[in-house]
Amino acid sequence: MATPHAEAILAKLVPFLGGLQERLCAALEHLDGAARFGRDAWQRPGGGGGITCVLEDGAVLERAGVSFSHVHGELPEAFARRLQGEGRAFAAAGLSLVLHPLSPMVPATHANFRFIAQGEKAWFGGGSDLTPYYLFEEDAKHFHRTWREVCDRHDPALYPRLKERCDRYFFLPHRGEARGVGGIFFDFGDVADDLLRALAFVVDCAEAFLPAWLPIAERRRDAPYGEAERLWQEIRRGRYVEFNLLHDRGTVFGLETGGRTESILMSLPPRVRWVYDHQPAPGSAEARLVEALRRPRAWV
Amino acid sequence: MATPHAEAILAKLVPFLGGLQERLCAALEHLDGAARFGRDAWQRPGGGGGITCVLEDGAVLERAGVSFSHVHGELPEAFARRLQGEGRAFAAAGLSLVLHPLSPMVPATHANFRFIAQGEKAWFGGGSDLTPYYLFEEDAKHFHRTWREVCDRHDPALYPRLKERCDRYFFLPHRGEARGVGGIFFDFGDVADDLLRALAFVVDCAEAFLPAWLPIAERRRDAPYGEAERLWQEIRRGRYVEFNLLHDRGTVFGLETGGRTESILMSLPPRVRWVYDHQPAPGSAEARLVEALRRPRAWV
Repeated sequence: MATPHAEAILAKLVPFLGGLQERLCAALEHLDGAARFGRDAWQRPGGGGGITCVLEDGAVLERAGVSFSHVHGELPEAFARRLQGEGRAFAAAGLSLVLHPLSPMVPATHANFRFIAQGEKAWFGGGSDLTPYYLFEEDAKHFHRTWREVCDRHDPALYPRLKERCDRYFFLPHRGEARGVGGIFFDFGDVADDLLRALAFVVDCAEAFLPAWLPIAERRRDAPYGEAERLWQEIRRGRYVEFNLLHDRGTVFGLETGGRTESILMSLPPRVRWVYDHQPAPGSAEARLVEALRRPRAWV
Repeated sequence: MATPHAEAILAKLVPFLGGLQERLCAALEHLDGAARFGRDAWQRPGGGGGITCVLEDGAVLERAGVSFSHVHGELPEAFARRLQGEGRAFAAAGLSLVLHPLSPMVPATHANFRFIAQGEKAWFGGGSDLTPYYLFEEDAKHFHRTWREVCDRHDPALYPRLKERCDRYFFLPHRGEARGVGGIFFDFGDVADDLLRALAFVVDCAEAFLPAWLPIAERRRDAPYGEAERLWQEIRRGRYVEFNLLHDRGTVFGLETGGRTESILMSLPPRVRWVYDHQPAPGSAEARLVEALRRPRAWV
């Protein structure tokens, strides 16, 4: 099990994440105005469990997942070796959230905040990123500005480092493109070694998710679009699927090591298309998005 | 480059596969009756190239890809280590085909026939499998019977071995399900060490693809279906995507080692859905399919 120090972190983090899950679901239902979250509580055979909340076919959110888990026990050997701690005994708590809006004008987004204790080591990981299908620069700037402000409150060196980590992580080499316009990403060794300081940072980040994304959704939710924009969104969602199944560590390791499949794959978009060698028209809004994904920018 | 013996095999195989690609495209266009194949010839920067033929939005075939490649040069180190030969010098030729019919009543199918020479070693790989969305037992039996007859002409021990290889390969552990009802699958060491005998077997298999699948498509193409069946098909296609991006070696290795992305991902279905924790009604046709995918059967 976790060390006493890690247990003390979990004692603070678990109720915080549990409460945050409820607040996030309430805020997202309020935004949507039509659909409600379903709630699945599940047990992990080896120890612990979680609550997966999913909303589908809403007025604003075509699919939204907010999942909390608090698990412990023995890691599968293969998984244990890929983590940065020691041995197989572990405890972990995390919240992950993926929003796939109905409108192609509202960007998809993802956030994840987790704490892992493996043997004597313990660390936080997570972050949040934005995946627009049409690029509104003011949206990308607002999203990044929010994360920079949160980071700066803790350490001015954090934002540039975590922004770059995000750009490197959410990248599809076979497409030569980023998944979206980034955000922040952190893992083992990226934030303070002092767990209480790291906890304060992660709590601050988790609280910043709604201010980072909700104003963008409110601003774009009623923007007009047609079938062409919807097709583009569904094609781009294919890239999202490619990233998650080919590269996302949480997805690939989670499935390999017997995680709860439906909770892991709630991240996939609801309706997706693949079209052979689809190329946006030069100079189009679609081409401008791809251009932005090929060269990560300093948004703030 | 390949040994003289492997070069002699390539000299026979390459024109055969090139001609077969044209015959397959013609037969599939004839079946479809509406759409035509587009044809992309491409070069591999390190040596060789291929022709990718894709048909989209047809009357019977929603997406069909038939791709030929003949490549050679140096394998990326990481790829070379995962193959069964020695060193990085290689030559390979192959044909791969993926058919995603429009109607949920017509099963999707895949076939692949390839020859790889790496250093002093050379071998054939490939196979063909069937992915129905509604299970018609006579279709599965016809498909398997065709492959058993081909195998039996060469060695009566082949079919049981290659059928079981197929069941093991096309399996999604996180779903506890096979991708479809199987077929045959073979790789290094599975067919005759004698390359000329193996070539004869592979040519026979490649010629058997149309007799294995076409009669099923003809029989089911006009069967009625509605939105519920189409939804089920799109959900099941999600499993196809999961298999290809998580497990299929050709896809994962191909993308990792700089293969042509659009030729590799032509295998993905055109329209796909993910629905949280979708469960077919007990006793329904959908549930009977899932039951068949959970326990591989002896179809012949």
